[in-house]
Amino acid sequence: MSRYVFGVDIGGTSIKLGLFEESGMLLEKWEIPTRKEENGAYILPDIGNSISAQMKKRTIAKDDIIGVGVGSPGMVNENGIVYSAVNLGWNHVDIPGQLGKMLDGVCVKAENDANVAAYGEMWKGAGAGYKNLVMVTLGTGVGGGIITEGRILRGAGGAGGEIGHIHVEDREEVPCACGSIGCLEQYASAPGIVKIAQKVLENSEKPSSLRAVQTISAKEIFDAVKLGDEAAIEIAEIFGEYLGKGLSIIASIVNPDLFVIGGGVSYAGEILFDFIRPTLTKYTNACNAGIKLQLAQLGNDAGIYGAAGLWLAS
Amino acid sequence: MSRYVFGVDIGGTSIKLGLFEESGMLLEKWEIPTRKEENGAYILPDIGNSISAQMKKRTIAKDDIIGVGVGSPGMVNENGIVYSAVNLGWNHVDIPGQLGKMLDGVCVKAENDANVAAYGEMWKGAGAGYKNLVMVTLGTGVGGGIITEGRILRGAGGAGGEIGHIHVEDREEVPCACGSIGCLEQYASAPGIVKIAQKVLENSEKPSSLRAVQTISAKEIFDAVKLGDEAAIEIAEIFGEYLGKGLSIIASIVNPDLFVIGGGVSYAGEILFDFIRPTLTKYTNACNAGIKLQLAQLGNDAGIYGAAGLWLAS
Repeated sequence: MSRYVFGVDIGGTSIKLGLFEESGMLLEKWEIPTRKEENGAYILPDIGNSISAQMKKRTIAKDDIIGVGVGSPGMVNENGIVYSAVNLGWNHVDIPGQLGKMLDGVCVKAENDANVAAYGEMWKGAGAGYKNLVMVTLGTGVGGGIITEGRILRGAGGAGGEIGHIHVEDREEVPCACGSIGCLEQYASAPGIVKIAQKVLENSEKPSSLRAVQTISAKEIFDAVKLGDEAAIEIAEIFGEYLGKGLSIIASIVNPDLFVIGGGVSYAGEILFDFIRPTLTKYTNACNAGIKLQLAQLGNDAGIYGAAGLWLAS
Repeated sequence: MSRYVFGVDIGGTSIKLGLFEESGMLLEKWEIPTRKEENGAYILPDIGNSISAQMKKRTIAKDDIIGVGVGSPGMVNENGIVYSAVNLGWNHVDIPGQLGKMLDGVCVKAENDANVAAYGEMWKGAGAGYKNLVMVTLGTGVGGGIITEGRILRGAGGAGGEIGHIHVEDREEVPCACGSIGCLEQYASAPGIVKIAQKVLENSEKPSSLRAVQTISAKEIFDAVKLGDEAAIEIAEIFGEYLGKGLSIIASIVNPDLFVIGGGVSYAGEILFDFIRPTLTKYTNACNAGIKLQLAQLGNDAGIYGAAGLWLAS
């Protein structure tokens, strides 16, 4: 008899679902919209209905399901209860309790989405074979998920791995969205690197292909770097110093085998590492000298893999 | 039948041992010298003999021992094997294997000493009742031990929690003992705060009682702070900014319930917190707003408590 796991990744605009075999093979993946009306009251019923429909379609019985794993925004405690996922309108939502009930007693686990993505990369992605890794997601913000000895570092309130808000710059004058100032996210996120670019281009006379670009992105900056554009190289160096410093600090605290770099900025490719590595090495002690940098491999599927991995990894 | 645990804390000059009841009560503690000759070859036999002598004295049979816990300097992996404890002359020493054999098959666990001290404070000290804490030891260096959900954060190579070497100052010109530069240890250790004091006293005209002191220590600085000494207050502010910044970073990454502050500098008392808290708060996001600061309670016994706790806590 085949047995199955559903992996669910709740995002702000869509919910990704995946059906996995016990072997870890992804059989099918699909998406449904995230209905945020009425403080997100429809989200869990929509997930439950979608899973039930898939079960019916494939004639999967309740007893054939090992479990359902869910990655959710917000702080998620060790019982899978979500505290304040502001973008969903959720506050104190018991995912295992509510979704389990909708699915007639199927067992459900839930964790924070960034942590689940890190778990996915450990199980089936760039971190396969390792048990200690930090996933760094460079997107609209800078997110993080920490796995130590194969377990998610959840922290006291489910806010472990919030690496976007470590302080890396004393001289910053503009506050971060979080209310603090000089946070890593202000320099290493997609908007962060664009801000660095604007400053460099404003304050320098260097000719640069970037001056002709209407809307600069990390990809264009690193493409220009590859062509030897001096201003682009300066931008990349500043970005790399901040991120390298941040990663060195994380390494001292967590001592991971590797960093997995994901998110939109990571699409620039491994050239990122050329700019991160010097500062990472400079501020890293001997214990972490062998630390690896890898690009994320699962892209947008990291969440469903990680959610399924909550049942199938280890 | 009573059952027992031995807790062992291996230090550079002496080894502390404690005999605990299963209830967690400390029955007796004692010390033996650390013989570092011949690459520390006598250390484990000395510990074995000392435990055997105590067993004989109290007529404790092998089967009455639940286990022996050991805290050791250096990087210690998940099997209790010590890699490069330089100050003992140890390299790749299998504590559970070797000490277990000497004790005729008694079960032995070993962990890094700083992590064990943190575990002790969680079990019987300032962190009692909490499962997520970071112990910060401000002594000759700055050491750390991280406990998340009741477990030691060991890291990939046993170097988790090396918080003394997180980078907190870009403008430093003198390298840290670790080879890096701008490490927290350069400002928040006992020698670090003394160096801050020297700089402040050199660069200021302020009258200060500290100018008359031959050998300044953290205690004298904070005693002068209590008397309103302006130079001492300035020193304490600089120290507190560095440590507050470091703790804010650790909080973002690990999300602990509390920090437990120990080591020689902590003898200055809770007045330390008045200087750490402002910067900690400034750079800490809302998820960690409620984070607590506590002075360590177990002093030099944290190690033997933590080592015994490896068997008795949880």
